[in-house]
Parts: sequence; structure tokens; C-alpha cells
Amino acid sequence: MPTGLLDAPRGLKGLIVADTSVGDVRGEEGFYHYRQYAAPELAATRSFEDVWWLLFEGALPTAGERTAFAAEIAHARQLPDALVELLPAIARGSQSPLAGVRTALSHLTDVEGFPAMLDVDRARIRADVIRVCATVPVIAAALDRLARGLEPVVAHPELGTAANYLYMMSGEVPDPDRARAIEQYLILAIDHGFNASTFTARVVTSTKADVGAAIVAALSALSGPLHGGSPSRALESLDAIGTPDRAEAWVRDAVLSGQRIMGFGHPVYRTADPRSVMLRGVAERLGGPLVEFATQVEATIERTLAELKPGRELHTNIEYYAAVVMELCGIPRAMFSPTFAVSRVVGWGAQILEQAEDTAIIRPSARYVGPPAPQPVPAP
Amino acid sequence: MPTGLLDAPRGLKGLIVADTSVGDVRGEEGFYHYRQYAAPELAATRSFEDVWWLLFEGALPTAGERTAFAAEIAHARQLPDALVELLPAIARGSQSPLAGVRTALSHLTDVEGFPAMLDVDRARIRADVIRVCATVPVIAAALDRLARGLEPVVAHPELGTAANYLYMMSGEVPDPDRARAIEQYLILAIDHGFNASTFTARVVTSTKADVGAAIVAALSALSGPLHGGSPSRALESLDAIGTPDRAEAWVRDAVLSGQRIMGFGHPVYRTADPRSVMLRGVAERLGGPLVEFATQVEATIERTLAELKPGRELHTNIEYYAAVVMELCGIPRAMFSPTFAVSRVVGWGAQILEQAEDTAIIRPSARYVGPPAPQPVPAP
Repeated sequence: MPTGLLDAPRGLKGLIVADTSVGDVRGEEGFYHYRQYAAPELAATRSFEDVWWLLFEGALPTAGERTAFAAEIAHARQLPDALVELLPAIARGSQSPLAGVRTALSHLTDVEGFPAMLDVDRARIRADVIRVCATVPVIAAALDRLARGLEPVVAHPELGTAANYLYMMSGEVPDPDRARAIEQYLILAIDHGFNASTFTARVVTSTKADVGAAIVAALSALSGPLHGGSPSRALESLDAIGTPDRAEAWVRDAVLSGQRIMGFGHPVYRTADPRSVMLRGVAERLGGPLVEFATQVEATIERTLAELKPGRELHTNIEYYAAVVMELCGIPRAMFSPTFAVSRVVGWGAQILEQAEDTAIIRPSARYVGPPAPQPVPAP
Repeated sequence: MPTGLLDAPRGLKGLIVADTSVGDVRGEEGFYHYRQYAAPELAATRSFEDVWWLLFEGALPTAGERTAFAAEIAHARQLPDALVELLPAIARGSQSPLAGVRTALSHLTDVEGFPAMLDVDRARIRADVIRVCATVPVIAAALDRLARGLEPVVAHPELGTAANYLYMMSGEVPDPDRARAIEQYLILAIDHGFNASTFTARVVTSTKADVGAAIVAALSALSGPLHGGSPSRALESLDAIGTPDRAEAWVRDAVLSGQRIMGFGHPVYRTADPRSVMLRGVAERLGGPLVEFATQVEATIERTLAELKPGRELHTNIEYYAAVVMELCGIPRAMFSPTFAVSRVVGWGAQILEQAEDTAIIRPSARYVGPPAPQPVPAP
């Protein structure tokens, strides 16, 4: 082994790999922010597009910037014919809508010839990022409708990202309360430190590949069940539990058989996840029996986990109430992960724009622990 | 900033992020190995499939294992109808064959419903990895032919990976010298430490996503011009130079105007790149004016770089003679990066199989350096 190498902590946990001004997660405080603003406060008071602009430009938009940005996004939503023609074939036989979104986006950025970031300036990288961020909800909604045997619906010229997303899935202008609930979820999920997909986007960006490559890779990371690939699993747990009185026995069985309890626990937060806290409020505003059931089960599972795994601080993470909110807003369960991507792609975009300023490729090392080399190669 | 965090070196250079027994690069010695064997010695004496088996199983195959593995790969090469039907549309309008391979592979693993690695055992992960490794050359060759207005050619039942790859592109059983030259290149490029694409594959694997997601992400990283996305750029430099006597003036101009000299320099090797050394020999065995020109230009550029950038040890990397060898074997330049992928996908496979044994998600941290947060959000 070469001398002078440093050992990273397992999973790179707690290792600072970059400086960033996109935002931060303060796990000990149960607090996270985008640029200089608390993310839940932004979700309470601002539109998705305002927060998107903030993340890209570092400041909230003026009225003029807001209007111009809405027009820029609306223009960037239009899919090229080469992709529109391919979508039915991508949807046919697709087992995972998130993988379908990845396939479609890979093709979109290929046919549009996104240039390597090595060869272009920030303005072009920003335009490509906006193209991708604007098309992900359009692609996701189109694949959902095609999978259900329906024709895709073209984006509504008057609606923002959140309402348009519901509109393009259902074909109907959504109820404002539901559109706002989804908008608040989308704002809360945009960015969250150097999670695996964000880090993946930055590693790929460091090779100076094109924006499409960075986002396709990030979508791949997001599909992992330990990352963004499992919000529907939290609802499947609620289905399996059935009634609140069965929650305690269910979680005891699950813990004793070594299963992870989906929707609970986070690698960074040592307190309640502030995203879960706000989304519980969003869900309660919508109301109904599912919300009551979910809050009862949450209390029972938290109490039981505190007893079975003392000191671990296992609380609901973003997936638990995000799943409840999406269910209440009529989003099919198969679309939960793609909906997460509709939000997070904007965070990846901000992170890509930041990483693109750095010229160093991200290329770590490993310690070889196999048999000593070289040994002579035997004759075949 | 939370206390107790560690700072990583820029680009994670020299940082040990994992233990591995797949292989190692000893940059100071100009040496690299797969498992316990020197990679160039394997390339000199073994088939691509023997080395593939070695990387997956930790030992070279017996005669019986070799036969069974050849049959397993031949079976895994067959594309599903859902992909065969999509390939013409993927090729149409594609600006980058490597992106086309990525799109096709994303669709293949989606329609075949690759399971999340969280939910399956090593045998299933291995089968999925072999499926991907076996289909990448088939997909690449088919997209190449479609882009040239030709029908894809089905794999030859009697040929190994390297000869089959040339066969599926040209439609003719290749000359054995050329097939062996490409096979040696493919062996030399399989694995090479924790480069950006390999690391990306491992980050995505750590989320417990499916094998397809990990490989799609790795293909995205490979497309970066600072990684695998630029072997054809080395030949473009030779074209620009034109004649050996113009090499010195060309490289002086390029260095003075701040350009990177493609095909020269490597982040790990402080000596000649052993892959370049062997590939120069492979190229010289094939012979011809391009090889003579390339070796003359190499000597001039190395001498000039040593003068202009003293102490930097800038030698040809794998891309320089790989480009020459591929050109001599009739591989279209647009297919140089996909050909690299035909090889490297096997290395990613071995790395994925190893990473899948680890339960920790890879999730580093960053240092927030923006304005202090939280500041109150102004009214819209």
C-alpha cells in the first residue's frame, strides 16, 4: 500500500468532502436549510419555483425574475418529438416508473446533444439543468398515464410545477389544497446534504460529463431502497398493520426478525426529522382516516422502537408522511419515487452547478486486502 | 458545523474509502493487478473470459468452468424483444453512442425487473451482473450498425466477447490478429482502482438499488471527458498535428493556451502507464504508418511536456494507444468510449459484487460556507 494515505470512516459518514453554499443539515438540532433560509419556512410561505430560483441563484426572486423564470420553465417543459414517440415503448413492459423516467431522460439528453461540462460555460450548464428539471415531471406523468393505458396530457400553461404535475397525471386541474400539499412536499424534499444521489451527481459532474449523465446517475442512486426507492414501502407497512391496536405486535415481530422498519430512522437526524414534522401537519390539514391511523401507528412504533432499541432515536423520516400526503393527493403508489425525483432533481441541479466550478475529479482510493500480488499466471 | 467531522483531501485523492480484494494500482511502481495477478501478464496469456471469471470468482477458471462460463455468457447475450424493438428509435437522433448504450441498458434492466439488491442474495446479483456485462457489447454493436443504416447482427455462437464484438459491428468474422489485439485492450481496461465510474457504481450499490441502476450510473460517470469519454480526442490531436515535425509546435501552443493534452497524464501513475506500455506493443505488432506516427509524436510530446511542466511526469495514458489500436481494428471513433465500456463493465460488476456485501450506505458530509442560516424568509 502506498504511504501517506488516509482512512475514511465507513460509508464516509461525517467526512467533509466539499464546501457548499447550497444548504446544510444540522442533524443534532433537527434543522436544515436551503441557502440562508430554513427549508420548512420556505415550504410554509413560498412557491416551488421561488425556492428553485433561490437554490440556483442564491437569493429569492424579485417579481420580475419570478415571471421570467415561470416562462423559462414553461418553455423548457416541452418534450422533443424524438422522446414523445419513444415514451409508449418505454412505458410498455416497464417494471419501475423511476427507471422509466431514467431511460427517457437518458434519451432526451442524448438526442438533444447535451455538451460535456468540460466544454461549456455556466450559462449553458444552467440551461441544461433547467431543461432536465422542467422535463422530469412531464416525463413521469406521461409514463404514469401510458402505464395506465391513457394518453399523456400536455402541461397546463397557467399552472406551476406542483399543480401541473397532478394535472398531467389526472388530466384535471387539481383541488388547490391538494396542489399546495404536494407543492409543500416538493419544496421540503429538494435538497438534503450530501445524500447518496446528490453525492453521485457531484462525482459524475467532476468527470466533466454532461448534465444528463449527472442526473441519470443521480436517479439511479435515488432508486435504492436505502435512499429514495422506498416511500411506498412505508404505506405497505401500514397496510400490513391494518388497525392501530396491531401496530405494537407488528413492529416487535419486525424488529425481532431483523427487518428494517421503513419510514423510520435517518442517518443524520438525532431528533425528529423536521420534514416529517411539517409533512404530518400538511397531512393533518388534509385530514381523514388514513392520517388518523398513521399518527396513531407512528406513536406506537416510536414508543416500541424506543423500548427495543434504546438510545437509537428512531423517528419517522421524510418517507412516512410523504407517503401519506401523496396517497391523499391521489398519486399512485408506483409514482411515489418518481415524485421524490420531481423535487430532488432541482437540488441535484443546484449541486451540479456548484460542483461544475471545481476542476478536480473525484477519485478516491481503496486498500487492497486480497492475496499478495503479483503471483505468476499459470498456463491456461 | 457539527463537531467531530473530518476533512477529506480535494477530489478524495489518496483517501481510502474501502477495503477491496478485486485488485490494486500501485502508481509509484507503474504496476496494477487483478486479484493476485499482474494485469498485463493476464492480457498476454489469457482470454477476456478467463480474466472476467477471475475477477468474479477470485481464481482463474478450470477447463470445465471455462466451458460452462462461455455457455452462460452466450445465453446472457440474447436481447429481449422489448429492447430489440426499441433500439432503432434509440439510435435515431442519438448524438452519443455511449449515451445510447446507457438508455438501452436502462430499459433492458427495467423491463426485466431487476430486483433491488436489498432484497436478493449474491447468486441473483451475480446473474444480473452477468446479464449486463454480456449485453453491453451486443447493444453497443447494434446501435453502431443502426446509426450507420445497417441491420444489427446477432452474436456468433462460436466467438468470445472480443471477436464477437468486432463481428457484431462489421458483420464479418474478424482477422485473428485484430480480434486478439482488441481482446488484449479489453483485458487491460477491465479494472483500475477506485476511478470515478467504479466509485459511482459502488455508491449506487450502497443504496441497495438494482444492478442496472449501478451500471447505468457508472456509464454516466465514464462518459466524462476527464474519465473515459475522450479516447477519440487523442486521435483528433494526431489529426490536428498531421506530421511528426509539427508535434512540438502543436503541444507548445496547446500548453501555453491552457489546454489539456488528451491521452497524456494520469492521476495515479507517476511513471509510464503500464497499460500504455503494453498497448504500444500491441499496436506495433499490428504495424503500419499510424503506429509509426503515433510513437514519434508520443516521444516529441513527452519530451516537450517534460520541458514545459518539469517534475509532472506526463506520459501517455491508456487512451493514447487504445485509440490507435481501436483505429487499426476498424472500430469507428464514435465507438471508442462504448468499447471502453464493454471492458470496464466487467470491472464494475466485480466491484458491485464486493460492495453488495457491505450494509453501510455511502453518504458523506459537506461544510456549509454560505451566509449564516436561518435568516427570516421575506414575504413574497
